[in-house]
Amino acid sequence: MRNKKDVKKKLEELGKTLYKEIKEGKNPFLDIPIRALSNVYFNPKTKLIELGDAKSRRYFFNVAHIRKFVQTIEVASLAKELLDVNKHLSLRQVFYAIRKTLPGTKIDIVEDQTESNQAIEDLELITGASREELHINAKKSGAAAGKIIIKDKGDTIDWSKLGSGGWSIPSNTEDIEFKKVDAKFVIYMEKDAMWERLHEDKVWEKLKCVIIASQGQATRGIRRLLRRLSDEHGLPIYVLTDFDPWGFYIYSVLKYGSIALAHISKKLAIPNAKFLGLTAEDIKKYKLEKQKIKFKDVDLRRLEQIKEYEWFKDDKRWQRQFKLMKEMKGKVELDALVTRGISFVSNVYLPEKIKNKDWID
Amino acid sequence: MRNKKDVKKKLEELGKTLYKEIKEGKNPFLDIPIRALSNVYFNPKTKLIELGDAKSRRYFFNVAHIRKFVQTIEVASLAKELLDVNKHLSLRQVFYAIRKTLPGTKIDIVEDQTESNQAIEDLELITGASREELHINAKKSGAAAGKIIIKDKGDTIDWSKLGSGGWSIPSNTEDIEFKKVDAKFVIYMEKDAMWERLHEDKVWEKLKCVIIASQGQATRGIRRLLRRLSDEHGLPIYVLTDFDPWGFYIYSVLKYGSIALAHISKKLAIPNAKFLGLTAEDIKKYKLEKQKIKFKDVDLRRLEQIKEYEWFKDDKRWQRQFKLMKEMKGKVELDALVTRGISFVSNVYLPEKIKNKDWID
Repeated sequence: MRNKKDVKKKLEELGKTLYKEIKEGKNPFLDIPIRALSNVYFNPKTKLIELGDAKSRRYFFNVAHIRKFVQTIEVASLAKELLDVNKHLSLRQVFYAIRKTLPGTKIDIVEDQTESNQAIEDLELITGASREELHINAKKSGAAAGKIIIKDKGDTIDWSKLGSGGWSIPSNTEDIEFKKVDAKFVIYMEKDAMWERLHEDKVWEKLKCVIIASQGQATRGIRRLLRRLSDEHGLPIYVLTDFDPWGFYIYSVLKYGSIALAHISKKLAIPNAKFLGLTAEDIKKYKLEKQKIKFKDVDLRRLEQIKEYEWFKDDKRWQRQFKLMKEMKGKVELDALVTRGISFVSNVYLPEKIKNKDWID
Repeated sequence: MRNKKDVKKKLEELGKTLYKEIKEGKNPFLDIPIRALSNVYFNPKTKLIELGDAKSRRYFFNVAHIRKFVQTIEVASLAKELLDVNKHLSLRQVFYAIRKTLPGTKIDIVEDQTESNQAIEDLELITGASREELHINAKKSGAAAGKIIIKDKGDTIDWSKLGSGGWSIPSNTEDIEFKKVDAKFVIYMEKDAMWERLHEDKVWEKLKCVIIASQGQATRGIRRLLRRLSDEHGLPIYVLTDFDPWGFYIYSVLKYGSIALAHISKKLAIPNAKFLGLTAEDIKKYKLEKQKIKFKDVDLRRLEQIKEYEWFKDDKRWQRQFKLMKEMKGKVELDALVTRGISFVSNVYLPEKIKNKDWID
């Protein structure tokens, strides 16, 4: 649902129905899918982490339900206002906007941000609109550069003409228009420093692509941006991470979704993502064995967890990586490629891997 | 020292002198200012946290000195190479680039990144060039928008025409040219979400300014950018933070420098920075008392520390804020202004504060 009118209509209908039912002396209710581990599963057909069908019914006239019920309605009312005035708020700002004391009582509608965050997720499920479509934004982070021209808020922005900094990716990428896409693929990486390396080497010009990074896990804005480039322009999304459990997890979330955001996997996950990060074979091929950083217990535990993920469990290529990593008892970072030359990653590693289709998908 | 030639010459001279001394059978040494709390002080004249005159002499032929000596020379040699090929590396990448085993031994030049980081700081002091001038970059973070046109890497970039995202600030802002500066001041804020609020409200157009944010403490790249806009174009730098000890500390570091980077305060600190964040008076004036978030012990302890800082100790205006904050036993975030209206911060708070010169400097 990309249409603002549709979202507004949904919110209006929700309000009208509740109002009518209360006036008629009925007990209005909301059916909300349960967002707990018990109702999250990996769908082998779609290859996504999804929410199951279990729902809970929340009644207005029920002492145990009323608090959450009112919180959800407060957020719905605020979202309607945001859509009307065409403005956006952050999660924190939404918390404050609905942090009021009910008139004539000492009861605050929300006491901390986890309550308003949950109400927002409920509203996503009730309306079928994402947080971003409800004009509520998450984190802003990351930069983009390369062979794409976009239109955003009336400005035409050429991602290949933004100096050493690049375009700063907003928290909400729903309304961006792709005007001209000369890129053949996207390289997403987990570290800004690697982005600056590739950018200085003009990798996006030499390989005709786009480079995107944020620090650590990708924001929702970046995930939607990657997903849209994959859907709307068929661009392969190559994910460049370290050879370590945390890097593998970044790839896993991008491709399959996450438990925390299972209700929105269908919009956020990128089934076409391909792992272009360091593999055990690369470490041998590029003689990086000596650049190993020894595992701590926490790394090893994380590896054991990821090994058991349903979507990795029967995948021989991944199990091989996990096995070899366990034997190495250590990780190797992409930055270690610098031991082969300042621009080795740009001039050798990436072109070779892409030419040889040497990725895991 | 902004001239690349000067930096290169310094590095070359360093190498030549050492080589000559070794050939002549002398014992070469490096004099390095001591970067420890004992040698850091607040200079009331410059109003900066600075490094004192205490130095330590490090000899090549000295078992206790040789390790650090060689690390510093390795970094110097790498910096020379980076300047020659006109490329940059991150701190992490520098660590890998000099992580080698000495031929014929089992000794690694560096074992972890703290060693290479220290060697880089030593080199900053020996050469008088900043890390950035040595082509070694720190973190990349933050976004800019507003009434400035820059030139960077051959691209002309208008900060007022970059859609909802803005310009992504690179880790190194030394080589940026300011082509056209129509801004009358800069607003720096600690939170991306606030930046997005001000940007959506086009504050920079209405107030003729520039808005810059990063998440939390400003990067070196941002600090240099702010400092250069202050020095080269006389723009006041307004710092917008929460009413809490952490927000005050962000302001303190921007204006006076920090202990960790005392050796570079003269380049990074911004003596003209003015605090435009929430004050105890604002909380009253804008009726935000109910939006208080109660202090945890850690907040209170931080407040007590900051109260004792030499540059705040005799400042009545700051001591008043600290006293009132202690009485409140809580903090108030800028985001709480949203309780007065979605765009209240843009339409009322900022214009009023600036018009009334209601800042602390």
